[in-house]
Amino acid sequence: MRARAPASSANLGPGFDTLALALDRYVEVDVEPASRLIVRSEGEGAGVADDSSHLAARVAIDVAGTDRLAISVRSQIPLARGLGSSAALAVAAAAAAGATDPLAVAASVDGHADNAAASAVGGLVAAAWVRGAVRVVRLPLDVGLAFVVIVPEVALSTSRARQALPAAVGRDSAAFNLSRMALLLAGLADSRLLLPEATEDRLHQDYRSPLFPAAPKLLASLVTGGALASCWSGAGPSLLGICLGIDAHRVEDAANAALAEADVPGQVLVLHADHDGLIVDRDGSAGLYDDH
Amino acid sequence: MRARAPASSANLGPGFDTLALALDRYVEVDVEPASRLIVRSEGEGAGVADDSSHLAARVAIDVAGTDRLAISVRSQIPLARGLGSSAALAVAAAAAAGATDPLAVAASVDGHADNAAASAVGGLVAAAWVRGAVRVVRLPLDVGLAFVVIVPEVALSTSRARQALPAAVGRDSAAFNLSRMALLLAGLADSRLLLPEATEDRLHQDYRSPLFPAAPKLLASLVTGGALASCWSGAGPSLLGICLGIDAHRVEDAANAALAEADVPGQVLVLHADHDGLIVDRDGSAGLYDDH
Repeated sequence: MRARAPASSANLGPGFDTLALALDRYVEVDVEPASRLIVRSEGEGAGVADDSSHLAARVAIDVAGTDRLAISVRSQIPLARGLGSSAALAVAAAAAAGATDPLAVAASVDGHADNAAASAVGGLVAAAWVRGAVRVVRLPLDVGLAFVVIVPEVALSTSRARQALPAAVGRDSAAFNLSRMALLLAGLADSRLLLPEATEDRLHQDYRSPLFPAAPKLLASLVTGGALASCWSGAGPSLLGICLGIDAHRVEDAANAALAEADVPGQVLVLHADHDGLIVDRDGSAGLYDDH
Repeated sequence: MRARAPASSANLGPGFDTLALALDRYVEVDVEPASRLIVRSEGEGAGVADDSSHLAARVAIDVAGTDRLAISVRSQIPLARGLGSSAALAVAAAAAAGATDPLAVAASVDGHADNAAASAVGGLVAAAWVRGAVRVVRLPLDVGLAFVVIVPEVALSTSRARQALPAAVGRDSAAFNLSRMALLLAGLADSRLLLPEATEDRLHQDYRSPLFPAAPKLLASLVTGGALASCWSGAGPSLLGICLGIDAHRVEDAANAALAEADVPGQVLVLHADHDGLIVDRDGSAGLYDDH
């Protein structure tokens, strides 16, 4: 069976561990019965671990209850950059292995319910753990928005990024993020309401900056370049500029200039929201790259 | 000049210091030039302080720049119960005294931007302080919802209620509230998505319970009585049941039974969202009680 799931950008500033947005880069996984475990990978992450330690293999073996599987992974999602590559891979691998609830599998394996929810459902989502299960709601997203993503050529593991965060925060900071998240949701639903302040955050972004000191300047460059707002993408180091589609290439140019000025190697992607989420193809006839 | 503003219920569980909902109980304020300060009050809070210490007088004098005013206040909003009486009064008094931005006046006087925003704008709102000013967004609200409010016959001052709250909270609690607020906003926009867990909160409600020990049982009674979810209204002690309009009287009966069983004196109100917010009537011809 073949399954495809989109990349995602989680947190979106104030929506720490809650919000995520599906983006139109994809990972595709094929799982078929075989006489022994075979793992093949192409694209992003190709050849990193083509054996039973590959996340897709771990998920598929767990779901299928056997390791007699031929697993093929093709990915367009940069790894360990804050674009939800492992959540998307887990969702797609679970579905390709026949899971009835790929989101539940992915959320339990990956631990990031927000990214997994966006990859499973598409669009702008919020994920919450309710009585031990992931509850997902889709939230309105203005179709006129585009997303300019600065992807530095440096990996930042989510666990290391999380260790940078304090265990306790001021009650005022918690309330600050609530108010900013409300502004952000209103602005993502209707881009005319989107203010740069809507992505302000006091729970994680500033604490992550020491791991990637160029981040504040790059975030600012996205807004001065024409983005309506900017924020870290997940645990970083990727940075997201939220802009009108018509401004995307102007913002892209500004981001490239800022990367060069900061002497940070990396690339800038102009992405759009994915609204389909997980697609499962029982015939295996639809190809990932056919859509692009 | 005459102005009318609705009551409001703030916080709504997870939306601490951010969300508020305008409800169809009103305060109406008339302000007219006079040879000396005259303050009259009717209804809720009548005669409590009919002099320059009355909140309406303080606001109107500040806005008008003179105390040569005849100020008349008629209120349907119980005082110090968590229904935004002072924010509504400040909004209406500021408008009746000719303020160009009654919300800004009320938010600075009362300090509760969330309540003031709901009273000024109506409906479901989020308020955020952005660069020293209150920024308000309206959020979608399902018209099929009604609000059953348990109003105990005991005042709870907001400042005392706030002293019960801790200065610091776990980062997990902050994230918990973000995820619950997202569920809540989805459920308030479409009541079919509203879960009881959407009003769960880890920032303020549990800390307030010692000030009103019957609260947890009363909150539960609203849900077992048919409400989709329940929460404290502002700083309490009023408690809000969010229900379908068709279930409101069933929930009301359950709330009355629970009040009796808990031996808590009080009343139960069945309210609806106000969608108009502040109404200013330059002729002073429209009466508050005409609408009801």
